[in-house]
Amino acid sequence: MSEQEKELKVLRDQIDSIDKQIHSLLNNRARCAQQVADVKEKYQGNQDAVFYRPEREAQVLRRVMTRNEGPLADKEVARLFREVMSVCLALEKPMYIAFLGPEGTFTQQAASKHFGHSAHCIPFNSSDEVFREVESGGAHYGVVPIENSTEGMVHHTLDLFKRFNLKICGEVELLIHHHLLRAEAEDLAGITRIYSPQQTLAQCRSWLDSHFPSVERIPVSSNAEAARLALEQGSSAAAIASDLAADLYQLNIVAKNIDDQSDNSTRFLIIGDQEVGESGQDKTSVLISVRDKAGALYKLLEHFQRHKISLTRIETRPGQQDATNSMFYIDFEGHSVAPKITRLLAELEAESTELKLLGSYPVAVL
Amino acid sequence: MSEQEKELKVLRDQIDSIDKQIHSLLNNRARCAQQVADVKEKYQGNQDAVFYRPEREAQVLRRVMTRNEGPLADKEVARLFREVMSVCLALEKPMYIAFLGPEGTFTQQAASKHFGHSAHCIPFNSSDEVFREVESGGAHYGVVPIENSTEGMVHHTLDLFKRFNLKICGEVELLIHHHLLRAEAEDLAGITRIYSPQQTLAQCRSWLDSHFPSVERIPVSSNAEAARLALEQGSSAAAIASDLAADLYQLNIVAKNIDDQSDNSTRFLIIGDQEVGESGQDKTSVLISVRDKAGALYKLLEHFQRHKISLTRIETRPGQQDATNSMFYIDFEGHSVAPKITRLLAELEAESTELKLLGSYPVAVL
Repeated sequence: MSEQEKELKVLRDQIDSIDKQIHSLLNNRARCAQQVADVKEKYQGNQDAVFYRPEREAQVLRRVMTRNEGPLADKEVARLFREVMSVCLALEKPMYIAFLGPEGTFTQQAASKHFGHSAHCIPFNSSDEVFREVESGGAHYGVVPIENSTEGMVHHTLDLFKRFNLKICGEVELLIHHHLLRAEAEDLAGITRIYSPQQTLAQCRSWLDSHFPSVERIPVSSNAEAARLALEQGSSAAAIASDLAADLYQLNIVAKNIDDQSDNSTRFLIIGDQEVGESGQDKTSVLISVRDKAGALYKLLEHFQRHKISLTRIETRPGQQDATNSMFYIDFEGHSVAPKITRLLAELEAESTELKLLGSYPVAVL
Repeated sequence: MSEQEKELKVLRDQIDSIDKQIHSLLNNRARCAQQVADVKEKYQGNQDAVFYRPEREAQVLRRVMTRNEGPLADKEVARLFREVMSVCLALEKPMYIAFLGPEGTFTQQAASKHFGHSAHCIPFNSSDEVFREVESGGAHYGVVPIENSTEGMVHHTLDLFKRFNLKICGEVELLIHHHLLRAEAEDLAGITRIYSPQQTLAQCRSWLDSHFPSVERIPVSSNAEAARLALEQGSSAAAIASDLAADLYQLNIVAKNIDDQSDNSTRFLIIGDQEVGESGQDKTSVLISVRDKAGALYKLLEHFQRHKISLTRIETRPGQQDATNSMFYIDFEGHSVAPKITRLLAELEAESTELKLLGSYPVAVL
């Protein structure tokens, strides 16, 4: 055995011994999870017992990220724990998740990111079908896009909350950004062709129109192909692609985040027939209608200001039938059971023609 | 705090304590993996060091499955360890994997199954491009289908081994089977409509032609939709879909595995510029040409028989230019460095006009 082999053997034996310990702990953890299920069934009965607790999962993952000292990155180790919880949960109860298909889209990525790979994720043709499937009990939860640059802010999804009696149980964020990549050059000069998948070209249209109005845009089949072509063709060509492609082909990022919407297609909601408890770091979403008089929005926002509650998003819902009403979609920090938020909601309700609480749920962890 | 809450708190505290131990072990494992990388660099230099060892990963996973006592299922816990290795490896060296795209296909599933979700998997338009990418060093490994019912046995992939100087470094199996599903009835009588995705209908064509020549076949967008329609429409309709869909919609499986090829699209090869060591349970693939005389194949097989070496697959390569030669693709058990296999290969070479060793690699674990 060579010196190298000897040194490697010592390390590999260590790894094997660590693996044995991890393995035994994983099975212990699964046994505890089974006991949790038993307790729930004992007190709540098989039908009513809720096996998946988004707030509990969020707490576990936050704790993992807080105590992590490396060398594994916080997000990577949290992702492992997500999978561990997914496997343990599947043992208690196989989870069925409906998502807006087809397969291979970002929504599927979001579903797997949130529920781990032991959940069964089933594609549906429309968000309506996803809601229907969850309401009928065919799936435990649904995953739908809420902010998607190709559909715009997904108002359609918000409208579904008016038709279906479901709650928001969680949110998922995916970070997807597009950059302009070139070989050789490090500036924007001399580009005559830009390669990218059709959808990405569409998502960067305004930026392209203002920076490269007369440059040819050539749709290709993938990020990777765009980057490869840019590499092959040198300084006359550029690609719009992701960080990953830039890395892989060692191209220069000559313009960052050129998506027309900087929050490109990257937020998804978990919907379910469940009120989620406090996780310690939560968000609440409401739909609120007010009479369309000057200052109505300002008056609403005053309440947030007074209670020092941070708004994370506010959107005006366009195209309501009743022209005397304005409707807003508002996300803010805090959980509806917290006294401060309970007061806020009462105040908002008093001033609105309609207030619909869409749900309180843990802020996305990963 | 209610009795239930008290009992749950005890269990959750246990889980938290287990998680802390797992967490700390995961980071210890990552540190060991970093030290393995350091040793390899010290002896081999940064360029030559091989960080990913398929045989070592296969051994780890087999050990996990052998020692597993549950309650987690063998495959689930092995899948977790696959992810653990993937995360640790990503820390040593980010892995780039080229696969036959587009995204969302079984080949991508195979790539993730084999390399875990910390590897960067990049889609390419053709298997040729995957090979080229790996040969040029742009990706560390490639994943291509080798048995795929939509393309037939993928001879094209085999041909690429003649053009590119790459080895088979591993195999991945995905189990995908299609069944005929019905609500209410449990036999084949009275069906007037069969729903399924277009591709699945194509994969079951012979079976449908022989059992339901005149029944309407209606293409729909997904397995799940087919199953839902069958459920809604009762005994006049049936769906062709997976186990998962049968489960989800509580349909009866009235005919199992009706795919025309029972090994439906489900084997993939890992290709790379690396000779893989012995894992203890290995397979070897060769392309072998013999003069086209009666008994040539029989004589070849005699060698396997005498050495008691199990053939796992043999295929005749059709359409070779030289009509006096026959070419066979053969998979058999064992590793080319084992004395018995070395002798076998020498004997085969003596009797063939050409013998190409495509590689020895671990039998698929998961």
